[in-house]
This record gives sequence, structure tokens and C-alpha cells, in this order.
Amino acid sequence: MSVIEFWFDFGSPYAYFATIEIEELAYQYGRPLKWNPFSLTAPFEQTGMRSLFGTPLRGDYAKHDWSRISRRTCAPFKIPQARSTAKVGRIFYWLSDNNSELAVPFAKASFHTCFGEGIDPGSPDGLSRTAGALGLEQNVFQAAAGCEQARVRYRQASAEAVARGVFGAPFFFVDGEPFWGVDRLPMIRDWLDRGGW
Amino acid sequence: MSVIEFWFDFGSPYAYFATIEIEELAYQYGRPLKWNPFSLTAPFEQTGMRSLFGTPLRGDYAKHDWSRISRRTCAPFKIPQARSTAKVGRIFYWLSDNNSELAVPFAKASFHTCFGEGIDPGSPDGLSRTAGALGLEQNVFQAAAGCEQARVRYRQASAEAVARGVFGAPFFFVDGEPFWGVDRLPMIRDWLDRGGW
Repeated sequence: MSVIEFWFDFGSPYAYFATIEIEELAYQYGRPLKWNPFSLTAPFEQTGMRSLFGTPLRGDYAKHDWSRISRRTCAPFKIPQARSTAKVGRIFYWLSDNNSELAVPFAKASFHTCFGEGIDPGSPDGLSRTAGALGLEQNVFQAAAGCEQARVRYRQASAEAVARGVFGAPFFFVDGEPFWGVDRLPMIRDWLDRGGW
Repeated sequence: MSVIEFWFDFGSPYAYFATIEIEELAYQYGRPLKWNPFSLTAPFEQTGMRSLFGTPLRGDYAKHDWSRISRRTCAPFKIPQARSTAKVGRIFYWLSDNNSELAVPFAKASFHTCFGEGIDPGSPDGLSRTAGALGLEQNVFQAAAGCEQARVRYRQASAEAVARGVFGAPFFFVDGEPFWGVDRLPMIRDWLDRGGW
């Protein structure tokens, strides 16, 4: 069975909420799930969209909406003051290359540190909490964050995202079909049930 | 029971798809439905978003997505080359004030002319098709479009939309709660079923 691709920026609350459902969805349909962190900076430049945290009107709606989704799903939700998410993205790719079985658990734990606990996941405190959640030593991720190879991988993933038409997060590809937004998980299920339409 | 407010720009394909479902939803929950056309121009200036027809990446996705929704819902879908939607919005408010029972049928028929048949709903051809669909004389809407009072009402509705945080279309208020996007109709049902959460 072909993989479900899950593209996300570590700074996206909607991607955080998606992490809670997408694994179960992939499991139910017997599909491997591929996690692809990337940076929204380049697509935002092309579309004129901006981080929801700094967008008038839409940002206020999003804050209200995140609380509503949190209450509905019982997923804890706090917005950290800073989100050094590129650092987390680089660590993810370092782990993928060097300790691959840790990459996805690291991504999930980072999302929890960020939006479950409200702590910048790339800060020293955030990284040590994430390490702690995985039962690892506090400083295990520090070297990875500065590694040039990880930087290149994160940049390449971000370029690939734009080349493939990804402009927001979360973004999914299922059998080549693109789906944007956590709201589309029911449509993805429908697509998989019916084999497309 | 309090009304469900349905805010939309006549140029939005996602609003067109919403018209097909929202009336049934309101009927099922015994709620009156209030149609509020407005212009997305002002909120777009604030959010940095643009018409999907001219947005790189997101526009390509939207075109693909509209075809997909059309196939799924069996709603006919064609994109007209021009969409003089402010004119249609002004006629809607003229009808609301002068022939109110025609306003909603006019809105639905205009959406069909626009995205069902692919004809600019504000063009002479589009207006006469819409009139024909309602069993009215061809030129019945021409005077309304140029009426100053209708222009003011459309402008006021657009200002009210921004003041209330509306930044996209379709946009709904249910018991004061805001919902953006046709994807959120299932969440609106859930909200009504549970009386909020």
C-alpha cells in the first residue's frame, strides 16, 4: 500500500491537532505514514498568506477555533510565546538520517511540548522536555540542531513542498491526491473508502 | 430559534457549494437562514489573502478541489471568465428591500448561472438567464443594479462583515459562534446537536 504523506510546519496548531488523528487514520487503512516537516515561509511569500499568529481577522478566528477544537478533542492546547520551529525541523531530519526510529516520536513529543505544554520546542527548556518525554538525555538534540546536513535537508524539504504545490499545513497526499487542512481528514477517509471519485 | 447567518461573496466557488447544503441543514434544525452577501475585498486587504483565482499554489489546489467537490456532490461546476459579483450583491439588497421574497431565489439562481453554467452572473446574459430561471422578464434586474441605495446596502454589509471578523467565504454564525468554510458544515451540525461545547 502506498504511503500517506503528512506535510507540516512545526509551528502550525492545525498540524498539531492533525497529529492526534492522522496516525490512527493511516493505521486503520493499513497505510504507512510519512512525516515531512517543512517551512511555510516560502509558500507564504507566494500566496500572500501569513502566520495565523500575526494575521488580522483570520488570526482572531483561528485562536477561537483552536480553543474550540481543543475542547472538542480533549487535546491540551497552549500557545507558546516563541516557536523556533525551524530548529525542530532540522533535528527531525538529523534523526531521520542518523537514528531514524526516533524521528517520528521526536516530532510527536515536540508538538506536545509546543502546543500541549505551551513551551517553545526549540528552546533549551523545550528540547530537554522533549528529550525527557522520550526517556533520553537532556542534551541529546543540541548537536543535531546545528548540523549543516540537517539544515540542508530541511531546506530541501521546504523546496520540495513548494514544488509539489504545498502551501499550508497540515497538507496530505493520498495516492497523489492533495488535501489541505485538518478539516479534510473526513474527506481523506471518504477518498480511501471509495478509492477516489 | 435564532437564525443561522450565511455570509458569502457571490464570486466564491466554495460559497456556491455551500448553498447546496446549508438550506437543508437549516431546515433540519428548524432554524431560519439569513443570506448576507458581501465583498471580500476589504478583508483580503487586511489578511493578505487574495482571490483564489489569482493566488499561486493555493489557486491551483482550489481548482483541483472544486472539480473534486463537484464530482462528489454532483453539482455542476464551471468557472466563468469574468464574475461581476458586486453587481449581483447590489441587486440582492435591492430585492431584499423592494421585493424580499425574490432575494434568496435570486441568490441561488445567480450562483447557478455563475458556477453551474459558467456565465458571469452580472453580465446582461447572466442576468437574463437568472431572470428566466425565476420566470421573470429579462430586464427586471437592470434598474436595481445601478440603484444608489443598493450600493450603500452592499457596502454596509461588507463593512459589517469585517467588523464582525468575517474574512472569507462561506462564513457562518450559529448562535454567535463563527465558522469559516464549507468544510465546517459537519462541525456546525455537531455544534447544533450538542448545543455547543
